[in-house]
Amino acid sequence: MSQLRRDPITGRWIIVNYEKAAEPESFRFEKPVKTMPFEKCPFCYGNERMTPPEIVAHRETGKPNTPDWTIRVVPNKYPALTTKGKLEKGGFGVFDRMNGIGDHEVIIDIPEHSLDIADISDNQAEEVIWSYHGRSTDLRKDPRFKYILIFRNYGKAAGASLEHPHSQLIALPIVPKRVNEELHSAHKYYNYKDRCVFCDILSQELADKERIVDVNEHFIAFCPFVSRFPYEMWIMPKKHESHFVSIKKDEVRPLGIILRNTMKKLKKLLNDPPYNYIIHTSPINGFEKEYYHWHIEIMPKLVNVAGFEWGSGFYVNPVPPEVAARNLVSV
Amino acid sequence: MSQLRRDPITGRWIIVNYEKAAEPESFRFEKPVKTMPFEKCPFCYGNERMTPPEIVAHRETGKPNTPDWTIRVVPNKYPALTTKGKLEKGGFGVFDRMNGIGDHEVIIDIPEHSLDIADISDNQAEEVIWSYHGRSTDLRKDPRFKYILIFRNYGKAAGASLEHPHSQLIALPIVPKRVNEELHSAHKYYNYKDRCVFCDILSQELADKERIVDVNEHFIAFCPFVSRFPYEMWIMPKKHESHFVSIKKDEVRPLGIILRNTMKKLKKLLNDPPYNYIIHTSPINGFEKEYYHWHIEIMPKLVNVAGFEWGSGFYVNPVPPEVAARNLVSV
Repeated sequence: MSQLRRDPITGRWIIVNYEKAAEPESFRFEKPVKTMPFEKCPFCYGNERMTPPEIVAHRETGKPNTPDWTIRVVPNKYPALTTKGKLEKGGFGVFDRMNGIGDHEVIIDIPEHSLDIADISDNQAEEVIWSYHGRSTDLRKDPRFKYILIFRNYGKAAGASLEHPHSQLIALPIVPKRVNEELHSAHKYYNYKDRCVFCDILSQELADKERIVDVNEHFIAFCPFVSRFPYEMWIMPKKHESHFVSIKKDEVRPLGIILRNTMKKLKKLLNDPPYNYIIHTSPINGFEKEYYHWHIEIMPKLVNVAGFEWGSGFYVNPVPPEVAARNLVSV
Repeated sequence: MSQLRRDPITGRWIIVNYEKAAEPESFRFEKPVKTMPFEKCPFCYGNERMTPPEIVAHRETGKPNTPDWTIRVVPNKYPALTTKGKLEKGGFGVFDRMNGIGDHEVIIDIPEHSLDIADISDNQAEEVIWSYHGRSTDLRKDPRFKYILIFRNYGKAAGASLEHPHSQLIALPIVPKRVNEELHSAHKYYNYKDRCVFCDILSQELADKERIVDVNEHFIAFCPFVSRFPYEMWIMPKKHESHFVSIKKDEVRPLGIILRNTMKKLKKLLNDPPYNYIIHTSPINGFEKEYYHWHIEIMPKLVNVAGFEWGSGFYVNPVPPEVAARNLVSV
């Protein structure tokens, strides 16, 4: 028998089969491979000239665009949006259109081609978060941008076109639809209950305990009650905070570590699946919403999204989050 | 330079690169293969006992669950939802939950294992639509259901678990989120303009001509101005009609033919890509919405949905729909 579950944030329904959960070994996916020779990888040491000049890098000594960096941020060579020009909006019959103003950066967050974020040290994990924070702080100064989206695609099946570990950042001139949906519901909930919907979910998850994967002083990692995907995980700050960029100095390292730890569990339990993770945060430049609660959503690519999902917005999840969390904890 | 486009139905933005469109040959996808021996395929002639007993079949003579059918409808052996039982709803803290009541059927719409809908005759194409119509007409009588979703997954990458051609039907106890979104916007537009938003899009597409792929007396096939995916196509009745199930007798054959024709063009131009198609229609049983306009959305699986799409609801489309339509027409 299956169960339908709905979350109060997006109104999204899932169908979860809680009689017979799919085994961790049962998933067939395209495993991320590393076959590119280092000398051809634009993100490897010595090949710094293959990317556009760096925006910023973490390195102790040495000149820009030379090796020995620990993290390097460069403009995307094939950007979805461009920073040059003035934002122009207009209609086209019933449609709206706008020129492609925005920013698209690549954060090469590990020098080692053959590793992934699951394999890095505590110090490296902390540095990854600092780099996200640094770029967010810088880009929010541009008044053309309303939203900064940071995400990671791991593996070709998750949309990664280069195999060297990297994150991406896109700054947008509008608040994207998915974010608006979350904001809208969070706002309604706040108006009605005078509480943050994410804080209420957090309390329930902490009380239930069943779906918690990892927890530290500042953060919790859990498989949400309404998980769209098998082994979906969310990392959330325990204290209400709408903006990722407002993260406190002493929270940066614990976030890096809990993120690395969950990625490590995922890799070990499921034999290195492709995944996406995304930082969900409040808009910027006058569109800040205090009732929002920033968090990271981790979505392993273990199943294909099919016609039913596309047509309905329902997700069929073959692994109850309770089972997923139990398996992840036991790794 | 890229362009941002938004449709008035879902408020969805896409980013389309209109300087340099990706070539039809440039896409790398997992081609649907047919490797299962016929004697093991539960949808092939002679193997009727491998499926649950048929719900209905089109055959001139012969007994149920024997060969020589032209179309055969069976319950899904591993249903996402089950028809048995009473609908039970309840809360769980901040969440909602419901038992998995619904119906999940498989429409084996072609006896030939090795063909696809792109390859069938005009008569077969007509019969496919009649089977969709017949099942919809029957299932709307069940007062527990609010929505009937008909879709096809073609190829493993599009979620098909069996390679023999088939469509699926899911009857749902609630109106799904994606449908609600479309209904909500269509309603707002109707209240404001006293016109159907889909009819307005149709007029604009017919006037522009640029994105039309095929057209007949009753239907138009086009690459929508706001295509999320390369070579996305919509098939829409020219006359306003909210329910697929209200299709007129003389419209069934033209719909089958235009659907088959667009699939044929897609297969030929792009070398047999995986795809999903979905019939978008109005809810049922008291939830009918006259301002809705039913249509079919065809979504080829040529690119992977990545972190940016998941996080924002934006879609980056490497082929402007104008180019896609031109290429499809020329096939």
